[in-house]
Amino acid sequence: MKLSGGPTQDEVMAISLFKLGLKKGDIFVDVGCGTGKIAIEASRVAEHVYAIDHRAEAIACAEAAVESAGISNVIFFQGEAIEFLESSGPLDCAFVGGSVGLPDVLEALSRKVLGNIVINAVKIETLNEAVTTMRRLGIFKEALSVQVCRSYDIAGGTMFKPINPVYIIVGGKT
Amino acid sequence: MKLSGGPTQDEVMAISLFKLGLKKGDIFVDVGCGTGKIAIEASRVAEHVYAIDHRAEAIACAEAAVESAGISNVIFFQGEAIEFLESSGPLDCAFVGGSVGLPDVLEALSRKVLGNIVINAVKIETLNEAVTTMRRLGIFKEALSVQVCRSYDIAGGTMFKPINPVYIIVGGKT
Amino acid sequence: MKLSGGPTQDEVMAISLFKLGLKKGDIFVDVGCGTGKIAIEASRVAEHVYAIDHRAEAIACAEAAVESAGISNVIFFQGEAIEFLESSGPLDCAFVGGSVGLPDVLEALSRKVLGNIVINAVKIETLNEAVTTMRRLGIFKEALSVQVCRSYDIAGGTMFKPINPVYIIVGGKT
Amino acid sequence: MKLSGGPTQDEVMAISLFKLGLKKGDIFVDVGCGTGKIAIEASRVAEHVYAIDHRAEAIACAEAAVESAGISNVIFFQGEAIEFLESSGPLDCAFVGGSVGLPDVLEALSRKVLGNIVINAVKIETLNEAVTTMRRLGIFKEALSVQVCRSYDIAGGTMFKPINPVYIIVGGKT
Repeated sequence: MKLSGGPTQDEVMAISLFKLGLKKGDIFVDVGCGTGKIAIEASRVAEHVYAIDHRAEAIACAEAAVESAGISNVIFFQGEAIEFLESSGPLDCAFVGGSVGLPDVLEALSRKVLGNIVINAVKIETLNEAVTTMRRLGIFKEALSVQVCRSYDIAGGTMFKPINPVYIIVGGKT
Repeated sequence: MKLSGGPTQDEVMAISLFKLGLKKGDIFVDVGCGTGKIAIEASRVAEHVYAIDHRAEAIACAEAAVESAGISNVIFFQGEAIEFLESSGPLDCAFVGGSVGLPDVLEALSRKVLGNIVINAVKIETLNEAVTTMRRLGIFKEALSVQVCRSYDIAGGTMFKPINPVYIIVGGKT
Repeated sequence: MKLSGGPTQDEVMAISLFKLGLKKGDIFVDVGCGTGKIAIEASRVAEHVYAIDHRAEAIACAEAAVESAGISNVIFFQGEAIEFLESSGPLDCAFVGGSVGLPDVLEALSRKVLGNIVINAVKIETLNEAVTTMRRLGIFKEALSVQVCRSYDIAGGTMFKPINPVYIIVGGKT
Repeated sequence: MKLSGGPTQDEVMAISLFKLGLKKGDIFVDVGCGTGKIAIEASRVAEHVYAIDHRAEAIACAEAAVESAGISNVIFFQGEAIEFLESSGPLDCAFVGGSVGLPDVLEALSRKVLGNIVINAVKIETLNEAVTTMRRLGIFKEALSVQVCRSYDIAGGTMFKPINPVYIIVGGKT
């Protein structure tokens, strides 16, 4: 299945997870889990992962990926993140890959998340909204612009081709 | 016609021409002229432009572009740059877009060019060869890595997509 | 004198001027001229350059630079761009290096400028404001993110050091 | 203590470790361990970490960092990597942060390392040497160019400042 946005690129995921600072025993929520790539990687460290998406096809895709990886600590929730967060207990870290209603989601997350909140964004409007909202909520830590190029073989040599740049926005109690 | 490599991207051309420092009255040589894009832009400032390519299809393509732009100060030479440089008089600036036999071409250019020599490279081997050769010839000024992203509309927003990174290597009497 | 922001970097200036598409005979305005670097470069092509800055020290700095370059087609205006634009005639191109009151300045520029308007921005809030305002005015063409690295000698080798990334936003009648 | 090169930046380390693909039980070697930052991070997953540096001050610095982190599975070796590798048993992964005698080190590593070898380089000559040597040894997988910018507060807004670009070269049995 092809989900809009596609899976997070490895290099962007590696930085995002590092900025999350997940520790053993953590409760982690992945908002807009898409293919489940981040949820699966986080599940190797976290105690429980909540994977949320409002798209049935994303949940189906991520569930299949989780099952085929033999992972049992990912709990799925199809619906709006706001809804999930209203009834959830405290969370240790959160990753936000989707951007619909971001200010409200961030406000809800900031009430439940004890550690870091990491957002991936490709639109400059989302970057701006994330930084502005985090500043307003007093949880802004840093934003990164990540530009990775990967080598390709060409005519007996090596050239770099770029992947799309991604903004990683990090918030949390400072 | 589709030439390998394709025309230089506008932003890379703008920087390359700036680094050339072309002045009115200059004699300019474009080694590996391809579609003629650089030669045409340079012809607006230079007195004479020599456009060189060993590929008949490149010369044909560039000649057509020069003609349709109504430009009359570009002189074409189909063959090896080394051959051209053996019999040419002094030159003010040179641009090198192609990379075959680069060390020999740079050595020949360094004997004829009074001003700057600017190379565009996408392969890391070419970058390395250009810098190493220019250092050996005592004409290395600087190398640039240029990474440009252009905006695209996406889902009611704006995202950046990168063009391939290009190395611009600048040499000349220092 | 040290003006905040500092002069535009060569590579960013080269791309910005290319995107302006200045032609002989053009009337050009440089809003927030700072050290005058862009105004001076544009004056080599444009018929007249209006260099505007509300800071007396910027005008003094730019005037000195213009004089020492022996240039006579730059006209200075100390004050707000809005004020200048109210009484100016039609303009061919505009460059905006400063960002105070950008939406109002863009609105005023869009009424007077026949060709392209190019903005340089380093803040993501300015990027967002520029794109949003240009979209609202129906003059948005493209935004670029420009990341240039320059070579430095290190321990018998060559490494790249980046200059600060700059956003170049381009508008005009489309 | 200030070691030349300084510690690996977090974002570059995150990507490098991801590309290493360390698993529980792995034997890992850090060639040119410097401050010990990579060795410490890897020690959280690997069974044993060998941290090698020919500089006494690097070993002292890394040993202090390891001790203050309460880590007990890092074994230090002051001397040349070649020397260590001659007598070592098989290794699962290797990270190379230093670049002296890289071709020989890579050749020795390729005989002992079962999994991935990841190199960090800032010099273009090192990048070229790493890629060329890995290609010759038949172990080249990919090279990355990583350009990260971090946000800074400026005049009521947010701008990006770049950290130095780093090349990450990945090799291993393919």
